[in-house]
Amino acid sequence: MPVESRALALQTRKEGELVDITGKVEAAIQAGKIENGVAFLFVPGSTGALTTIEYEPGLAVDFPKALEKLVPAKGSYEHEERWHDGNGHSHVKASLLGPDLFVPFQKKKLMLGTWQQVVFVEMDVRPRSRTVIIQVIGE
Amino acid sequence: MPVESRALALQTRKEGELVDITGKVEAAIQAGKIENGVAFLFVPGSTGALTTIEYEPGLAVDFPKALEKLVPAKGSYEHEERWHDGNGHSHVKASLLGPDLFVPFQKKKLMLGTWQQVVFVEMDVRPRSRTVIIQVIGE
Amino acid sequence: MPVESRALALQTRKEGELVDITGKVEAAIQAGKIENGVAFLFVPGSTGALTTIEYEPGLAVDFPKALEKLVPAKGSYEHEERWHDGNGHSHVKASLLGPDLFVPFQKKKLMLGTWQQVVFVEMDVRPRSRTVIIQVIGE
Repeated sequence: MPVESRALALQTRKEGELVDITGKVEAAIQAGKIENGVAFLFVPGSTGALTTIEYEPGLAVDFPKALEKLVPAKGSYEHEERWHDGNGHSHVKASLLGPDLFVPFQKKKLMLGTWQQVVFVEMDVRPRSRTVIIQVIGE
Repeated sequence: MPVESRALALQTRKEGELVDITGKVEAAIQAGKIENGVAFLFVPGSTGALTTIEYEPGLAVDFPKALEKLVPAKGSYEHEERWHDGNGHSHVKASLLGPDLFVPFQKKKLMLGTWQQVVFVEMDVRPRSRTVIIQVIGE
Repeated sequence: MPVESRALALQTRKEGELVDITGKVEAAIQAGKIENGVAFLFVPGSTGALTTIEYEPGLAVDFPKALEKLVPAKGSYEHEERWHDGNGHSHVKASLLGPDLFVPFQKKKLMLGTWQQVVFVEMDVRPRSRTVIIQVIGE
């Protein structure tokens, strides 16, 4: 039972953007030899995160709006006092949501719900070129 | 080293309900051949989530109450404008908490703390029949 | 493909402390035989959690401060009514953040971002001796 290592590249445009990567994750599994197992997704960076959501235009507004309410950009952050890069709140939001997500699959098909997609959540205050690491483990 | 795929079925009654699935997860591991490894649990759906908690009557009130305070049902959600199913906040809470949880085990015993249980958290606004997928990987 | 089971011991001093365990996790992988895979970290306990963050003095203040704002120690918790141990909010924060975190690695090196560290987050109201379980799976 091998480990298959892959990486997805994506370009984000702005803070709060949700990028639906479901198709890319499935393509990565399809391209491999493992039929049944788990896909482990990880963001190597401290201002992006992963989760699942019903990817539709309403929630694409609601979810980042809720995160902004919980951890406001206009709050006071020690990170700002030291680094002045304007993204103290981005770090806090990303650590709250987490950089890791796994999705099980069978017969090379992700076992997601009917209205459930895998999304990368951009938390940083500027467009970023992002990589999502995928380690596939199974048989 | 094989992968063992299982599914737990459960019935929830209302939003904010915590369902202790620790015993069912342990039973699934006991029923398999893998002695040492990790149990990967996943909710195929976008209004339920998994975490661990000290499962006792106080926290069974406190945890959903805190989630409601963070993401109020009475807030304004674009999801509602489009779909009118009354559960925009449910989606946001579920994406915040996340659909995936893993628990390591040794000698077929979950390596949980003494006062730590595995719970499914119902976020939807009505009773639901739920499935939790378990992929067990180990040796 | 074996599973390597390890445990990290650490001592915390106070609520809200972030303990950078990146070096210890890398040492655990270095000490093993698995070259390529995933390290699965788990807190056996209900008042501690794991995440990644840019570990620097500013965010070491900002992150616990944000958690305190979201789930205030001075709030009203049913857990307190029953157990009087002063840590109802600690449990809620820990369940929100979650006890599990995985990090992929290649050639025995964690695939973290340049400014991304693995941290244990102490949520309890007193110093604790903590264990973090590591299950390493790969090839």
